[in-house]
Amino acid sequence: MTTLGSTGRLYGIGLGPGDPELLTIKAVRLIQSAPVVGYFAKAGRRGNARGIVDRWMTGEAVELPLYYPMTNEHAFDSPVYVTVLAAFYENAVAAIADHLDAGRDVALLSEGDPLFYGSFMHLYIRLRSRYRVTLVPGVTGMAGCWSAAAEPMTWGDDTLLVVPGTLPLAGLIERLRSTDAAVIMKLGRNFAKVRVAVQEAGLLHRAIYVERGTMADEIVMKLAEKTDNNAPYFSLVLIPGQGRRP
Amino acid sequence: MTTLGSTGRLYGIGLGPGDPELLTIKAVRLIQSAPVVGYFAKAGRRGNARGIVDRWMTGEAVELPLYYPMTNEHAFDSPVYVTVLAAFYENAVAAIADHLDAGRDVALLSEGDPLFYGSFMHLYIRLRSRYRVTLVPGVTGMAGCWSAAAEPMTWGDDTLLVVPGTLPLAGLIERLRSTDAAVIMKLGRNFAKVRVAVQEAGLLHRAIYVERGTMADEIVMKLAEKTDNNAPYFSLVLIPGQGRRP
Repeated sequence: MTTLGSTGRLYGIGLGPGDPELLTIKAVRLIQSAPVVGYFAKAGRRGNARGIVDRWMTGEAVELPLYYPMTNEHAFDSPVYVTVLAAFYENAVAAIADHLDAGRDVALLSEGDPLFYGSFMHLYIRLRSRYRVTLVPGVTGMAGCWSAAAEPMTWGDDTLLVVPGTLPLAGLIERLRSTDAAVIMKLGRNFAKVRVAVQEAGLLHRAIYVERGTMADEIVMKLAEKTDNNAPYFSLVLIPGQGRRP
Repeated sequence: MTTLGSTGRLYGIGLGPGDPELLTIKAVRLIQSAPVVGYFAKAGRRGNARGIVDRWMTGEAVELPLYYPMTNEHAFDSPVYVTVLAAFYENAVAAIADHLDAGRDVALLSEGDPLFYGSFMHLYIRLRSRYRVTLVPGVTGMAGCWSAAAEPMTWGDDTLLVVPGTLPLAGLIERLRSTDAAVIMKLGRNFAKVRVAVQEAGLLHRAIYVERGTMADEIVMKLAEKTDNNAPYFSLVLIPGQGRRP
């Protein structure tokens, strides 16, 4: 797919929620034909994205792992975190640009959908003015989770709110009260607060907790029945809508 | 995949936003192995769902088209509409149950994701207590549209609101003002009102209009530059978020 004498094309490829069979036909085709496959990972790990595509890799591509800097000790909005992460993105962009400038297409893997809370976007906005780009949408993590929960999420004229658990308690309650359906993400250390917000908004009886939806070790339970406050990165709370249903 | 002597399994299969290559590997596998493939269509038409899967059909499945009753002359919340539609769903359920009772698996096609505003859900809630069901999530229509627009939708702690254009103007404005990113669906005859709401919420400069995203005849333009009020069923307005980006 590389035109000799020109720069390569960047592919932003959504991988879906975790089940390797939930990649799209287009995603698999492009991953298998790309000379370079890039993906984010923690230092020393293969990373979740690389794991999802394992069965689809032909072994012919150059692999370009992009290792996140260790940032756990800094808050997301601290100047140190912002500086360290910006430098990481710039280095990743330079590594990708080297391949593109040499005429090699680069398929950049993105869990879920590449334009929906994806790290891919930080590289994309730095590269899109300089290179041709093709974006391949994916099944979002939240769709994987409501599929695992087997609950219809939105009906008829329902509104859906997607909200991070990082919001202050009062803001969470207010927003949950004004929607028909909701997905609450980024639980982690916000989990206890999220549970209070859901209860205060009068939605606890409808709330479902899902961990690692569509993956081999997925967990689905009523939020009201979850007795601990442990909620890893790949977890969500779902409030299914109850709209018009003839 | 049918066990002799037992009832068949119902598959609810997301087809993605329109590009036939945006079906998942799992969706194609299950469509190709199902003895019965069901799909919604308008009377006298093949229907959009059947069109999307055309290249993946092996010709071996029994096809079960489910023809919508003509309801254009009635409002969505009128008693006549509700009665006619409920009868249609009951008849569709009976036709599907006939196959399942005979031990034949049924793959029911659903544009986008089956649990996200899908007609599939109306059949699913009537069948799920009686039969085994497997749900296959799909790329949503809105993800197809923001991919077509090539704009990152949500960053960091952005909230996303998905809202139908059917809401009253004041409610639309209020909700748009309280979110970071938004997807406004169900434009149609609500389009002029939606445009006013976006403008009143101070978001017109960020708003993108997308029609038939990922399909061959897709249209992407700034909402501010759209000069008419024609907006078909497969169209959306996107307000991309502007959250944290180191």
